[in-house]
Amino acid sequence: MPSALSSPLLLQPPITAPTLNLSPLLPLRTLATRRRIATRPFSPFAVPIRATVAIEKETPENERPETFLRSSDDVLSSSSSSSPLSVRARFEKMIRETQDEVCAAIEVADGGGSFKEDVWSRPGGGGGISRVLQDGAVWEKAGVNVSVVYGVMPPEAYRAAKGDVGGNSGAKAGPVPFFAAGISSVLHPKNPFAPTLHFNYRYFETDAPKDAPGAPRQWWFGGGTDLTPAYIFEEDVKHFHTVQKQACDKFDPSFYPRFKKWCDDYFFIKHRGERRGLGGIFFDDLNDYDQEMLLGFSTECSKSVIRAYMPIIERRKDTPFTEEHKAWQQLRRGRYVEFNLVYDRGTTFGLKTGGRIESILVSLPLTARWEYDHKPEEGSEEWKLLDACINPKEWI
Amino acid sequence: MPSALSSPLLLQPPITAPTLNLSPLLPLRTLATRRRIATRPFSPFAVPIRATVAIEKETPENERPETFLRSSDDVLSSSSSSSPLSVRARFEKMIRETQDEVCAAIEVADGGGSFKEDVWSRPGGGGGISRVLQDGAVWEKAGVNVSVVYGVMPPEAYRAAKGDVGGNSGAKAGPVPFFAAGISSVLHPKNPFAPTLHFNYRYFETDAPKDAPGAPRQWWFGGGTDLTPAYIFEEDVKHFHTVQKQACDKFDPSFYPRFKKWCDDYFFIKHRGERRGLGGIFFDDLNDYDQEMLLGFSTECSKSVIRAYMPIIERRKDTPFTEEHKAWQQLRRGRYVEFNLVYDRGTTFGLKTGGRIESILVSLPLTARWEYDHKPEEGSEEWKLLDACINPKEWI
Repeated sequence: MPSALSSPLLLQPPITAPTLNLSPLLPLRTLATRRRIATRPFSPFAVPIRATVAIEKETPENERPETFLRSSDDVLSSSSSSSPLSVRARFEKMIRETQDEVCAAIEVADGGGSFKEDVWSRPGGGGGISRVLQDGAVWEKAGVNVSVVYGVMPPEAYRAAKGDVGGNSGAKAGPVPFFAAGISSVLHPKNPFAPTLHFNYRYFETDAPKDAPGAPRQWWFGGGTDLTPAYIFEEDVKHFHTVQKQACDKFDPSFYPRFKKWCDDYFFIKHRGERRGLGGIFFDDLNDYDQEMLLGFSTECSKSVIRAYMPIIERRKDTPFTEEHKAWQQLRRGRYVEFNLVYDRGTTFGLKTGGRIESILVSLPLTARWEYDHKPEEGSEEWKLLDACINPKEWI
Repeated sequence: MPSALSSPLLLQPPITAPTLNLSPLLPLRTLATRRRIATRPFSPFAVPIRATVAIEKETPENERPETFLRSSDDVLSSSSSSSPLSVRARFEKMIRETQDEVCAAIEVADGGGSFKEDVWSRPGGGGGISRVLQDGAVWEKAGVNVSVVYGVMPPEAYRAAKGDVGGNSGAKAGPVPFFAAGISSVLHPKNPFAPTLHFNYRYFETDAPKDAPGAPRQWWFGGGTDLTPAYIFEEDVKHFHTVQKQACDKFDPSFYPRFKKWCDDYFFIKHRGERRGLGGIFFDDLNDYDQEMLLGFSTECSKSVIRAYMPIIERRKDTPFTEEHKAWQQLRRGRYVEFNLVYDRGTTFGLKTGGRIESILVSLPLTARWEYDHKPEEGSEEWKLLDACINPKEWI
């Protein structure tokens, strides 16, 4: 088993549809040194690009560094900015602050458990901090991970991002360096009336290729926050979606309806014909707005997590429940496992390409259950949840 | 959610390496009427053949028919046989007898639970019997399914089986009818010292294509029996492998070493670098021996299941255990889920092509567990099991 520490990757190579989303909790590995996978498709989703990114191997650290950025990145970037710090630097600062705030809020609300931390870095720059609270008083498993990754992607990926697929301008182009940073978190409570939360925000940049001077640098944002309860409390779901809408509306009135639908579409367990939960917002490849505006939007979404989730936890964490309630929660946890192992692109990509398994699979619940042919009684609370997962609703 | 009943498929189209194994617990659906998947690969494994089989939709039945065969199949087949019944008929008889015997033995040993039965058929012939015992005294989930399937495969698949890939002899050939029958079972006990058992035996035939008179009919056998304990009792594992070897040695001394290794290779959780259990035997595409001999071999293996497994259950089902023992069993059940959802070809194919989910996923345990970065203490009983999953041993 791999002994080196790793952390989630939260990036996506800049390719066109069908997109390859390297979403929550995917660590990068030294693919180039471990295994060549460039000659075969690594997943059913990866149609256009068969090569993949190459990253150095990670090493454990005893202390958190002030930054995981290369020193050259700590200054003003070439993109438009009113800040003395690059977008890379400000995004890293934001996700690390968010990690601290979310972990602190969880420890306070849990009242029992505390986070175990793993810090790691890579020789050429980049690294991450993985934090996991397991078997606490309120949460059975809570993971909050940040990572900063410097890697190299094949030139085809870069050309596809520029809309230059099949063109000959890049015939001699070499691999394109990229930068990715992100925060990713899954929080599974014990009480069956307290919902699971997932959130993930990521920023991605490619460097201008050295052998194509003047070629544009690409960047984009991705992420989302979604709620997965086993039982519906309308006021909880309304509150959660309202906070997401408020964060969206500060930037663009089209964001909430668009990203709400994107979320319902993404977290779809196709073989069940149902979503894993009650959604929230999800977006990816976002670069057709002002970069500063999208940095502000990602920050607003990240900073809204505590306000969206913690009031629900406070209301539900001590609700009395029966064995039947717990069994239903466990069945829904089984669905969570099915989505993550079968569909989540970050997870399936990570498993197939040799990522650090414990970091990838920290998103799985502590416990899950599968009953043969379980069908909730029509009209029951369990049936209502299932119905809302099959037929997504407008909550606000 | 689909309401019609289905059952495991246990067949494999006759393609060359990399093979497509439609292994345990995969129900077929009316792929042709539901969705066209012929133009894209349905899984990373399905390299040579992009089209797939087409099967009629199943309907529930109130009673078990005497046979699921078409009446024309009930007589002497065209292949060499000393019996008045076709190989198809004798194989169906054998798997249904095995299902009855195994279910009876399990109910007796369980002493509490009983099997729930679902019978189904298809209008053009074929059908199946699914039996599940859930939350019994000894087993938390035990599924024993038989099925008989008549379907149609693309001509490319048939030509590949004949070694005629790219040839023009079949340029005008139409779809090739096929027949498949099999038994598939996964038995998950409650006691952490009592092992999980999986077995699956299947027989496959293609008809001679109507538009290519004289073209040979293809047939082959596949299957295996493997043991997945959470703790190693050497006498149990030796007994289990000895029974497998005895069954093999009655037919060919090369079978046991060859099929033992095949089993270790197939049930490999690549992202963990470990097998899901302690193996047994596994084989597929077997047609380079006398057909009667292989029918006898599959029968011998199927009839050996009770002798291989039940003495172990009797010894371990009432062993006292701690919460820690149970938690370790649950972690290993998590590995079972990972193998089945990520790697098992039958499961992943079935999920992606619209099979009946409850039949496919009856192989999953009732409960499973994932702890972050769990590492058994070196030298502990848990560590010994993990070591044997990482480094397969010769048990006899």
